[in-house]
Amino acid sequence: MRKKIDKFDLQIIKLLSKNARLNYRQLAEYLGTTRQRVSRRLEKLEREGIIKKYTIIPDFDKLGYIYVVLGITVTPGTPLEEQIEILKNDESVKVVERAIGTHNLVVHILVPKDMKEVEKKITEITGRLKNVEKVDVTFITEIAKFELV
Amino acid sequence: MRKKIDKFDLQIIKLLSKNARLNYRQLAEYLGTTRQRVSRRLEKLEREGIIKKYTIIPDFDKLGYIYVVLGITVTPGTPLEEQIEILKNDESVKVVERAIGTHNLVVHILVPKDMKEVEKKITEITGRLKNVEKVDVTFITEIAKFELV
Repeated sequence: MRKKIDKFDLQIIKLLSKNARLNYRQLAEYLGTTRQRVSRRLEKLEREGIIKKYTIIPDFDKLGYIYVVLGITVTPGTPLEEQIEILKNDESVKVVERAIGTHNLVVHILVPKDMKEVEKKITEITGRLKNVEKVDVTFITEIAKFELV
Repeated sequence: MRKKIDKFDLQIIKLLSKNARLNYRQLAEYLGTTRQRVSRRLEKLEREGIIKKYTIIPDFDKLGYIYVVLGITVTPGTPLEEQIEILKNDESVKVVERAIGTHNLVVHILVPKDMKEVEKKITEITGRLKNVEKVDVTFITEIAKFELV
């Protein structure tokens, strides 16, 4: 059953989505409440999996990588669990999303800036999957906005 | 000119990508160094824009949203700056990426769980853009992996 999320939860989530490093004291100040109340609520949000992860958005270009998104369409009815496991274990694969619609799998990969490496990696990844009908390859050149909530 | 990123920078980046809330003391312990060295380096990574943002990955489903990725292809030669600005100002639009390849724009939107709302939102967004040739609509049902570095 879905847990009720109230306005206070949402305020915490929004603040942390803008800056995940805010500590309890800072969050309490922004929200005009106590550290204790913030910490109790935040622990609940983590425990219930509403906040799945605290992470960073790096500048891939400055890190020397090309950021590629593969939109993969498989034959209808193909089970995806096993394919997702294969993808997850690849170190170049940074994001794996299960999906319906145009694509059944959305896979984000980071490859050192070398188009031969990119081609090799894409061939390797798609070659390991079953019943691939179509792969849409998109190279991200700039992240103009990133605010998940 | 691209700044040199060394092994120590990368170790900090990897730790923070797994948990952006680690404090200086914790980072220093993991890396067997001093808080001062960690804080100096982290400030440098932020200043140089190598770490662009600290954020959270929420469970969209538990928050009551449908997470949709639009892969938009525009007529070759269409300028994207203005279109990106239009997209960025829409509150439902959470991620805007400029791209080359199959898609020229990758747009992530969060819409309350109601397919009529989803349809309305997609029509509204794509209707505001110019020279749209094709829109691939993908509904993310599960984030199986998310580790940006």
